[in-house]
Amino acid sequence: MIAHLGPVELLTPKPEASLAFFHDVLGMEIESQAGQSAFLRGWGDYQRYSLILTEAPAPGLAWMGLRAWDQESLERHALAIPGGRWEDGMYRFADPDGHEFRLYHETERYVAPEHLKPSWRNQPQRYTGRGACVKRLDHVNLLACDVRACREFACDVLGYRHYEGIVLDDGRETGAWLSLTTAAHELIYVHDAREAGGRLHHLAFWVDTREECLRAADLFVDAGVPIEAAPSKHGVAQGFFLYGFEPGGNRIEVTTGGYMVYDPEQQPVIWSEAERARGQFWGVRTVPSFHYYGTPPTPEDAELAP
Amino acid sequence: MIAHLGPVELLTPKPEASLAFFHDVLGMEIESQAGQSAFLRGWGDYQRYSLILTEAPAPGLAWMGLRAWDQESLERHALAIPGGRWEDGMYRFADPDGHEFRLYHETERYVAPEHLKPSWRNQPQRYTGRGACVKRLDHVNLLACDVRACREFACDVLGYRHYEGIVLDDGRETGAWLSLTTAAHELIYVHDAREAGGRLHHLAFWVDTREECLRAADLFVDAGVPIEAAPSKHGVAQGFFLYGFEPGGNRIEVTTGGYMVYDPEQQPVIWSEAERARGQFWGVRTVPSFHYYGTPPTPEDAELAP
Amino acid sequence: MIAHLGPVELLTPKPEASLAFFHDVLGMEIESQAGQSAFLRGWGDYQRYSLILTEAPAPGLAWMGLRAWDQESLERHALAIPGGRWEDGMYRFADPDGHEFRLYHETERYVAPEHLKPSWRNQPQRYTGRGACVKRLDHVNLLACDVRACREFACDVLGYRHYEGIVLDDGRETGAWLSLTTAAHELIYVHDAREAGGRLHHLAFWVDTREECLRAADLFVDAGVPIEAAPSKHGVAQGFFLYGFEPGGNRIEVTTGGYMVYDPEQQPVIWSEAERARGQFWGVRTVPSFHYYGTPPTPEDAELAP
Amino acid sequence: MIAHLGPVELLTPKPEASLAFFHDVLGMEIESQAGQSAFLRGWGDYQRYSLILTEAPAPGLAWMGLRAWDQESLERHALAIPGGRWEDGMYRFADPDGHEFRLYHETERYVAPEHLKPSWRNQPQRYTGRGACVKRLDHVNLLACDVRACREFACDVLGYRHYEGIVLDDGRETGAWLSLTTAAHELIYVHDAREAGGRLHHLAFWVDTREECLRAADLFVDAGVPIEAAPSKHGVAQGFFLYGFEPGGNRIEVTTGGYMVYDPEQQPVIWSEAERARGQFWGVRTVPSFHYYGTPPTPEDAELAP
Repeated sequence: MIAHLGPVELLTPKPEASLAFFHDVLGMEIESQAGQSAFLRGWGDYQRYSLILTEAPAPGLAWMGLRAWDQESLERHALAIPGGRWEDGMYRFADPDGHEFRLYHETERYVAPEHLKPSWRNQPQRYTGRGACVKRLDHVNLLACDVRACREFACDVLGYRHYEGIVLDDGRETGAWLSLTTAAHELIYVHDAREAGGRLHHLAFWVDTREECLRAADLFVDAGVPIEAAPSKHGVAQGFFLYGFEPGGNRIEVTTGGYMVYDPEQQPVIWSEAERARGQFWGVRTVPSFHYYGTPPTPEDAELAP
Repeated sequence: MIAHLGPVELLTPKPEASLAFFHDVLGMEIESQAGQSAFLRGWGDYQRYSLILTEAPAPGLAWMGLRAWDQESLERHALAIPGGRWEDGMYRFADPDGHEFRLYHETERYVAPEHLKPSWRNQPQRYTGRGACVKRLDHVNLLACDVRACREFACDVLGYRHYEGIVLDDGRETGAWLSLTTAAHELIYVHDAREAGGRLHHLAFWVDTREECLRAADLFVDAGVPIEAAPSKHGVAQGFFLYGFEPGGNRIEVTTGGYMVYDPEQQPVIWSEAERARGQFWGVRTVPSFHYYGTPPTPEDAELAP
Repeated sequence: MIAHLGPVELLTPKPEASLAFFHDVLGMEIESQAGQSAFLRGWGDYQRYSLILTEAPAPGLAWMGLRAWDQESLERHALAIPGGRWEDGMYRFADPDGHEFRLYHETERYVAPEHLKPSWRNQPQRYTGRGACVKRLDHVNLLACDVRACREFACDVLGYRHYEGIVLDDGRETGAWLSLTTAAHELIYVHDAREAGGRLHHLAFWVDTREECLRAADLFVDAGVPIEAAPSKHGVAQGFFLYGFEPGGNRIEVTTGGYMVYDPEQQPVIWSEAERARGQFWGVRTVPSFHYYGTPPTPEDAELAP
Repeated sequence: MIAHLGPVELLTPKPEASLAFFHDVLGMEIESQAGQSAFLRGWGDYQRYSLILTEAPAPGLAWMGLRAWDQESLERHALAIPGGRWEDGMYRFADPDGHEFRLYHETERYVAPEHLKPSWRNQPQRYTGRGACVKRLDHVNLLACDVRACREFACDVLGYRHYEGIVLDDGRETGAWLSLTTAAHELIYVHDAREAGGRLHHLAFWVDTREECLRAADLFVDAGVPIEAAPSKHGVAQGFFLYGFEPGGNRIEVTTGGYMVYDPEQQPVIWSEAERARGQFWGVRTVPSFHYYGTPPTPEDAELAP
């Protein structure tokens, strides 16, 4: 049994500018720095950090953590996933598209330093309000050459539940919204139009209100952050979104809303091509880059790059 | 001196469906009905009604009221506007594009019937919460063949202030945002790409919060109201918007936000073609219909009709 | 393993007025009516109904449903809970304070009639926007003479997790916030100052935004619904609230917000008397009725009755 | 004719802590500093500054600026106000309670330095999002021994309109809400229970949304700013509020909402003692300090001091 996703390690060729984005614009705290990496957290993350930002030649996702419910779950899962290896108490393996996962149980809870002590004990850290002031890492959207294979792996091996999906008229599965909890999505696979393998579509950070997404858009505008998709409401999963690009080239979402799935026998809602042609919830058309661009970008992505 | 805009008379070829839209979806009250007309009001309108909805062969705006500050202002303005005529205590005249205005002073204040009595005396009517529950008529956007001529008429003759505008590279003025108060706009002229004369771009109704615009979009979706532009923030004047079409074909906006102009010497902010090419505040591209479609629609508008 | 709470059966001595409140003010749908009962639902409830409203001499909670994850869980739980009995496929039992629970698995999913069909298939029903338009039943707060006993029963027997609590200086446990999921609370026990047994503190219905809570307060004011506590933010569990009384005398909350618990080893946050003396999150003092009044009311509650 | 209020000069015995509050928590910019004063601005203020914060032995309001519509208005008003004097192009005078006003016309418009240049030209400064990020000075609430005399002075001499008021059963006028525009209040007089003369009740700064008031309350909590009244909605004038104390002891409001007055013949809404006993819009009781404490504080205010 897996409890949740995170932390994730994100790669950037522009470490200083990326760090400034996550600290100043998204409003995360720099919990620590070591070597080529900075360890960042939202004010509501219970662990020490949810994002490791690391300098690298190209942007993309290095790996994605998954915290097992307990040590016994960790070991049981590891036995069931062939081809992985243990390192530092984490079991490292890849999904069918080559994205690296690291499954672990033991972790460090955050203890706020004096200047970040919250006034109320039921939140891990002071609410600073800096920038978009994202609360926590919410979900990861991975590009995949074979969405079905990845979705089956996530559900059958990792225990994710399948809440929504897209299946084209020719039968190809091009999207899968997956969750470990009642939240409408925590892990998403969408088809990689470049068929490149192991790429990231976006990381999403949670804020508690739609107004905070709108405010984040104002901040993006005045901070010069390229907005790919202005705040609106998704049709699939009904999340409220704002998409932009951090300086390293990775797509970042500020998200809130959606619905909760309480039915233990919930059947996935599968959308057809015709239904998807309606655009987002309120009819907004998705911009082309959203269907193609991922990190690391392919040569064809160059023209879509922010 | 003119105090404010309204009421307006809106024409519809589908009176029943239009009335259902304004009552059920926008949440206005039907204050009364007479002949082919229904008299409607938002919960915050201080007059008996702000919208007269009248059956007609084609959609469009019949006329737009302007309330003079007092009887003396009314008479002084009437003297200064050639070509009009008095009828029922109102002075009727047209702007250079042929839109009819009716200037008046005497009016009837709303007295709520028992079932609509508010709990607090500083609002004219109970807040029913039905549908989008718009508070009041906010502004009117008129199409004009010659925006400059209309803007000069509004400013020089009617006393509007000019807060924002658009001037193309070839010197043509294609938009003017005008106000009688500190509100960023109350009357807007934009260029009529069809050069048809006397047409309406849209009527806008006010809600107090952006969340109510988002909520109105949800209501539009489930009530089958065609959404032309999903909620977002304008660049010009910074108003928050939702655009849809009422069943008669008229474009309706649900709006909030913007800024207040306190500087008595405020110079108009004039946008260039290049600046307008940036899209709306958060980069949203304006859909083509927004640049062409007006009511009554021209034959060329047919393909853009909702 | 239990999936979620609901439906609940609520008793009212004023069935017509109560029904009008839940339909007109809270905006629930009347799914059906039979005998002395009406079956109601929020627009986001996946089951046919989440609230059964039944005429009775006094207000209060008749029973509270709990849906087991599957048939096997249902049977296993039933074996572990002594003193209950099977009826209509439900296992009926009581907590240590005498509140009746009904554990079941088989259920009917909602199929919206034509006029309530949603535009998007991932929501069970059209968003009507009527009244506060609550989305779903969220949580139940039960008064208990012995909070510790009830909390231990809920955790040890029903599988709830204990996220927050109040323990007085003398060691008495006077509040326990419990959940089956990552939501910060789904079942709450607070001390019954009247020590009456089996009483209800309140039912809470979910809306997606704080703005909807504020809007609900406006609706309460103009609909004459007594507001016990105006919208604000709880210290414990950080939920945003509005409390009022339905005509039958039961306390009803409109709620949103709070946080999600992702840590599988989350230790309960236990508040002391001194900490609780700080009031709610932003310092609001709790009104006395909140600490005493429950349904059915005791004679001492009479003076606090709405 | 007077255009608007501001700037104001606020006195503080704790200049460093007060400056940190206005910069870090309210999120204002320090436009410049000179001598014992800092000149601060909201991101939406069109003038160089709206607040002068000056070190002094006790808190309070030094004076309040009023910008005349033009030079001719300025001179005409000055002639009509006996007992004032000209200094630096400003006409200084006092209201009947002894509050100093400075009437002026010439002013400096803000030109943002490079790091605060906005992305859109129709706002004077970049939206930084720091702290509560108030947009502009909104209104001033002055304590007065004789509210009626001050209200008559403001209306008859300065041209304010009287939109709402409180008159007790014994005929004493204890509150007056006044405005120069369609905004529901820009200058407020409330009775000084200490009858001290020349005191300040509070300064109010505008944010565009209620969500920003709620967010400001979270910031106040974690920054250790004493909250006097948590976010809620006023009955009188219907403004949404948050009240706290800056370190120097002055009461500060973060405000939004309210309504617009379009009727040129609007009669003031006068509230009776019985009506005021209903509390705020949603029934919240006003805390005692709100009725007594002002700056500079009297000896009796000591126990109410934050």
